[in-house]
Amino acid sequence: MNTVRKIINDPVYGFITIDHPLILQIISHPYYQRLRNIHQMAFAYLVYPGAVHSRLHHSLGAYHLMCTALAEIKGKGIEITPEEELGAKLAILLHDIGHGPFSHALESEVIAGVHHETLSLLFMERLNQEFNGALDTAIAIFTNKHPKYFLHQLISGQLDMDRLDYLIRDSFFTGVAEGVVGYDRIIKMLTVKDNQLMVEEKGIYSIEKFLVSRRLMYVQVYLHKTVIGAEMMLIKVIRRAKELIAGGVTLMAASPAFNFFLHQPPGSIFTPDQLDTFCQLDDHDIMTSVKNWMAHPDKILSLLCRSITERKLYKTTLQNEPFSHATVAEKTLSLATSLGLTAQETGYFVFTGEASITTYNVDDERINILFKNGAVKDISQVDNALISRNIESTIKKYYICYWRH
Amino acid sequence: MNTVRKIINDPVYGFITIDHPLILQIISHPYYQRLRNIHQMAFAYLVYPGAVHSRLHHSLGAYHLMCTALAEIKGKGIEITPEEELGAKLAILLHDIGHGPFSHALESEVIAGVHHETLSLLFMERLNQEFNGALDTAIAIFTNKHPKYFLHQLISGQLDMDRLDYLIRDSFFTGVAEGVVGYDRIIKMLTVKDNQLMVEEKGIYSIEKFLVSRRLMYVQVYLHKTVIGAEMMLIKVIRRAKELIAGGVTLMAASPAFNFFLHQPPGSIFTPDQLDTFCQLDDHDIMTSVKNWMAHPDKILSLLCRSITERKLYKTTLQNEPFSHATVAEKTLSLATSLGLTAQETGYFVFTGEASITTYNVDDERINILFKNGAVKDISQVDNALISRNIESTIKKYYICYWRH
Amino acid sequence: MNTVRKIINDPVYGFITIDHPLILQIISHPYYQRLRNIHQMAFAYLVYPGAVHSRLHHSLGAYHLMCTALAEIKGKGIEITPEEELGAKLAILLHDIGHGPFSHALESEVIAGVHHETLSLLFMERLNQEFNGALDTAIAIFTNKHPKYFLHQLISGQLDMDRLDYLIRDSFFTGVAEGVVGYDRIIKMLTVKDNQLMVEEKGIYSIEKFLVSRRLMYVQVYLHKTVIGAEMMLIKVIRRAKELIAGGVTLMAASPAFNFFLHQPPGSIFTPDQLDTFCQLDDHDIMTSVKNWMAHPDKILSLLCRSITERKLYKTTLQNEPFSHATVAEKTLSLATSLGLTAQETGYFVFTGEASITTYNVDDERINILFKNGAVKDISQVDNALISRNIESTIKKYYICYWRH
Amino acid sequence: MNTVRKIINDPVYGFITIDHPLILQIISHPYYQRLRNIHQMAFAYLVYPGAVHSRLHHSLGAYHLMCTALAEIKGKGIEITPEEELGAKLAILLHDIGHGPFSHALESEVIAGVHHETLSLLFMERLNQEFNGALDTAIAIFTNKHPKYFLHQLISGQLDMDRLDYLIRDSFFTGVAEGVVGYDRIIKMLTVKDNQLMVEEKGIYSIEKFLVSRRLMYVQVYLHKTVIGAEMMLIKVIRRAKELIAGGVTLMAASPAFNFFLHQPPGSIFTPDQLDTFCQLDDHDIMTSVKNWMAHPDKILSLLCRSITERKLYKTTLQNEPFSHATVAEKTLSLATSLGLTAQETGYFVFTGEASITTYNVDDERINILFKNGAVKDISQVDNALISRNIESTIKKYYICYWRH
Repeated sequence: MNTVRKIINDPVYGFITIDHPLILQIISHPYYQRLRNIHQMAFAYLVYPGAVHSRLHHSLGAYHLMCTALAEIKGKGIEITPEEELGAKLAILLHDIGHGPFSHALESEVIAGVHHETLSLLFMERLNQEFNGALDTAIAIFTNKHPKYFLHQLISGQLDMDRLDYLIRDSFFTGVAEGVVGYDRIIKMLTVKDNQLMVEEKGIYSIEKFLVSRRLMYVQVYLHKTVIGAEMMLIKVIRRAKELIAGGVTLMAASPAFNFFLHQPPGSIFTPDQLDTFCQLDDHDIMTSVKNWMAHPDKILSLLCRSITERKLYKTTLQNEPFSHATVAEKTLSLATSLGLTAQETGYFVFTGEASITTYNVDDERINILFKNGAVKDISQVDNALISRNIESTIKKYYICYWRH
Repeated sequence: MNTVRKIINDPVYGFITIDHPLILQIISHPYYQRLRNIHQMAFAYLVYPGAVHSRLHHSLGAYHLMCTALAEIKGKGIEITPEEELGAKLAILLHDIGHGPFSHALESEVIAGVHHETLSLLFMERLNQEFNGALDTAIAIFTNKHPKYFLHQLISGQLDMDRLDYLIRDSFFTGVAEGVVGYDRIIKMLTVKDNQLMVEEKGIYSIEKFLVSRRLMYVQVYLHKTVIGAEMMLIKVIRRAKELIAGGVTLMAASPAFNFFLHQPPGSIFTPDQLDTFCQLDDHDIMTSVKNWMAHPDKILSLLCRSITERKLYKTTLQNEPFSHATVAEKTLSLATSLGLTAQETGYFVFTGEASITTYNVDDERINILFKNGAVKDISQVDNALISRNIESTIKKYYICYWRH
Repeated sequence: MNTVRKIINDPVYGFITIDHPLILQIISHPYYQRLRNIHQMAFAYLVYPGAVHSRLHHSLGAYHLMCTALAEIKGKGIEITPEEELGAKLAILLHDIGHGPFSHALESEVIAGVHHETLSLLFMERLNQEFNGALDTAIAIFTNKHPKYFLHQLISGQLDMDRLDYLIRDSFFTGVAEGVVGYDRIIKMLTVKDNQLMVEEKGIYSIEKFLVSRRLMYVQVYLHKTVIGAEMMLIKVIRRAKELIAGGVTLMAASPAFNFFLHQPPGSIFTPDQLDTFCQLDDHDIMTSVKNWMAHPDKILSLLCRSITERKLYKTTLQNEPFSHATVAEKTLSLATSLGLTAQETGYFVFTGEASITTYNVDDERINILFKNGAVKDISQVDNALISRNIESTIKKYYICYWRH
Repeated sequence: MNTVRKIINDPVYGFITIDHPLILQIISHPYYQRLRNIHQMAFAYLVYPGAVHSRLHHSLGAYHLMCTALAEIKGKGIEITPEEELGAKLAILLHDIGHGPFSHALESEVIAGVHHETLSLLFMERLNQEFNGALDTAIAIFTNKHPKYFLHQLISGQLDMDRLDYLIRDSFFTGVAEGVVGYDRIIKMLTVKDNQLMVEEKGIYSIEKFLVSRRLMYVQVYLHKTVIGAEMMLIKVIRRAKELIAGGVTLMAASPAFNFFLHQPPGSIFTPDQLDTFCQLDDHDIMTSVKNWMAHPDKILSLLCRSITERKLYKTTLQNEPFSHATVAEKTLSLATSLGLTAQETGYFVFTGEASITTYNVDDERINILFKNGAVKDISQVDNALISRNIESTIKKYYICYWRH
């Protein structure tokens, strides 16, 4: 009989059940608890006020889907040992543990040269040491060194539990009904053949719907112009802060940990011994610093910080082609005059860029459909499949952000 | 034709429509935007990970319900002028604007001697000045000086839109399905007679269900032992911080605004000129400070701060009778020894208290049921009404919190 | 690996999975398929247009809840053998198979002297013969002869899966949001001690909410005055039809099976050899006959039949005390005159009666709460339990129905 | 003040409000009440047990959406007079009133030579006479003779309220989550320009999602092979019945109305004086007759009728190309032998056909998108619109049905 059993209320799935002592210990660990203070969707709540759910909540959700998927697959006669089951659950629980605050925006600004997946692995290895190797299988699955490939696919693949949960959860909390995914049907249709994750034939339409929902979330939510503008503004704040520090100006962040990373010499690379300092960082440090800097003597920094705090964001426009130099030059001139800045400084207030889906790694992986007659086809090869061809094209937008005075 | 029209996605109601320029200006005002950074349910997210919605989101929701209720009441032939309609909408939008971070817990610790409703009124008056008297009617309704009493009841009463939204929203985000309220039916049943808000006879069962849902939310969520424990821990942190400051110890908060209030001399009273400083405060200041103080030399402060950050909360027990002195004394002795503290200092780690519903002002107001024959009865007087008698009794619990080493 | 696996879409629970060949055979059996054509809620759809779900759908739903409950209980270490599991699933699937059309209304009119539970058992025994004893355990559980009492309680008890599903499903299809039951939490809280079904301590509030929801459904839906009036009108139609037949008037039902039962001599008792004829009966026979009889020469019969068909129902009033003779006499006199009937005939158009909850067998059974310390208390004995005392009182209403000319 | 106000519970939209006396009179009319007894989705409930909602329920739902859409459009400054508003509501309420039982399957079998829209108009004209011309505007809108074209588009067009409701409602009752349509957002995006219904630019993605949902419902639900097989079986029953009658065999339907139409001489055409007889027909007549005919001496008829009743349906296969003669010939030979039938008679037990979407009139009409700059484009011309091109192609499937002995 289980000695551990904890039920967590979740507005999305109803209840999430924890029934293994190690899972409970990992969730209780400070490394994991810090994810409570990191918004899953960064600044999306500036547009969708409900989108304030945390990375902790998302990874609990992904864990829940993993439990459901493993039960389903086992129910179809595929062998999964208890150790593999625990490993897959731990791996999905920890898959995002390396995220810092405003990760997609700040990864390159605050912690240079290291990707959040690398940090996730670093955290897992630390935990593995602390728990005497109990995460060996989890790490093997996460790094795709475990022989059962389909377990890795459930962590990282076209239909992994991470992606499934974030689409569902982001759709739920934003209130963007168009993004709702029929996850229960998708999971019911999962199966395994030749060590690969497959979808049963009758799940084709659920997959089509999933691909459309995903695309609509990308276009409507993840590439929302105002959210892009807000995140760019935060990037500009950090850049200005580092520029001032590099120029010898006194500038303190609201916390020692954030201060530490801000004051790293230019060109520094993240090293594993900084992990505990990194672990102190969350959204609170960033946001408190931004608020504090509203009073900083540097006009550019203070103006940007006030703009974030008071939600006076850049006017942002998206289009499918790059913006012309003329457009940018004209706005730069106008803003340089009105703000009393040099042309170079005005780069904080008008600039262009290119946004594509960073939440989605386009790779070669397929969504395999297993037909009743045993044949296997990629969804894009299925006769009559509505949307596959269009869905695969990557989404790229050009944006211009400029200050509205 | 309207010149302003903004649609906000809301996971609870679908869409919230803003169609008046003044409403939009108020929402865009920094006074209002700060509510984004204040959790509606304070530390409830430590138990219910979804409960991270903001006070801004709640007041937008209450505004939406007000729009619906006013349309319904007007549809029944009750006269409400456009000015009154705008006033009622503004009043509900701003009813909670005076809340600070962790309001219920910190009101007495951080900003002494002033209730959040007083602050709300202060904010409204400032805005009224800024908008040249455009909030006159809103303020009259809020302070119950407007002749149409039912408009005030929609802001503050047994069935006000504030309460309705927070029960619905808190239930939604916590995932506590038992708290779901049939708000659409309640609103459809609202009517006005003799200047008073009433519920039509056939709405009796919806009201009964509402009262039960409310009570269950109180008992299961608002008085959740772990949440009480967490909020008490934050109160203890602030008390310790002020005690240290009073004792001359150097202690800096993460932000100037929080610092300002912490360093007020004991016994100081909030004054209106502090409003702009107050307005700088939100959850980020508190949480960053707590994290920073984990490294403070004071053993008590740092231990408490680490406990919050790592979610190593007090063990809290609730019961209907006060805890005996013996129970407390025994735990105090044990903890004093293990933590190496004086008995007095141990008061930070074991203590008792009394929790009752602070979110609910028990007053004399009634829920009037309007019968088809024209009679009016309070819900508690309705023959066969299930639950009214029990529902009215106030809920009070005694708790003990103690440190688990 | 399972060789049978069928997924049925259900708007209430998402999917219902059938994964045992015998379950599938039973569902495919004509005895079971006839339940498709019997409305779960009889004439409730005349008030709630969505309430058109069938008894087949309800028993599939109860089967689904049984699967969930058994998995939960097994997960807590209670032993349930595969045979018992199958037995419990079959028993719940078949618990209502003895229902005829408009069962609560017509049980005494069409098939005299036999209760639908007796018929259910008769059906099960027939199926058991056909499937060579494969339903032995199911029957033992259904008739409470199986040693594990808690399995019987899941079929028939205060918290059985039948009741849970019909409350959820009826609430869902009527759209009466007040009746929504947090069934997933209730099921998660089920446990077994001393061979008895229990609810864990932290499930108390879910039980309270369940009891309130149940009561509200009884009062708002199951005792809805218009529905009572409609069902009484159908009873009057059958009575008049039998009266005419007894008086030698030619009267044919739309189907041989219905004809057979209508033409049974007064005082006849149902016998098992009539089971196959009974099995031909469903709502269609009744409703087609009612439509056909609109053209019957008997003025009373045709008027009543037209009234049902065109939804010109009795005006029905409910109250807590019996109606006075004077009230009835006055209306009788008035109707006798306007319809040109004798006083006795007028009894078809004005009459009184008493309605109490026939869907709910008040018995001595308890809802046991299992406390963490091992103590067991009935919900009504739990300190602070809101509603228990009131909830137990039976609900009885007096009604008067009269024709509106 | 309104003197009429009726609230109907609807599981899909919560509440439907009737607030005009004429609407209430129309709903109470026997012509309308008969729709209670006609399944919206015919035999779909044989696959999706929840799909038992009635045509009455659907048209109430469409009426509700119309109320919402008109309020939205008026809120955008488009003039709609009270008379037009009432007309549009009546027109949508009555748009389907001409449907008979199993309409799509039986239209050509039972009532020859007349389309249900013609019958709807006939009903409206009768009601217009009865209500002294009160439906003049409704009829003008329905028949597209009213000058405000957009009102007609709300009744019959790519985005009409009929289609919107049936997609939502069918998806809801079947439990096919993939079909869920974000109707509230679509309606919020509706506007009118140049007398035409348009969708605002920011509604593009909602329209894309709508088109995908619609297509998935078509493929998964409306063209479900088992449902096609069941409806074909009913057609075969009627054909056999008429064949027997034409051959002089005695065969009685369960009701005079159904009998009347069955016994019309071959080649007869429906005439308006048959409308009241038609109005007696609903699903009950058909289904009772089918049950009764299980005992008919004709082997083919009785076998088909038993198959429907016991849900022993044809094995049906769909494919994109026609089935070869060889396939059919082989199955015919095999079945002729096993059933002891002539080759011609075997045509009742094996046959092929072609199914395309009959619920959807492919016409030239466009979904116009109104851009912020005033430009208007069809959704299929919008740059980056995902799915438009594929979505437009009509869906056609070839099927083979054959008896499984």
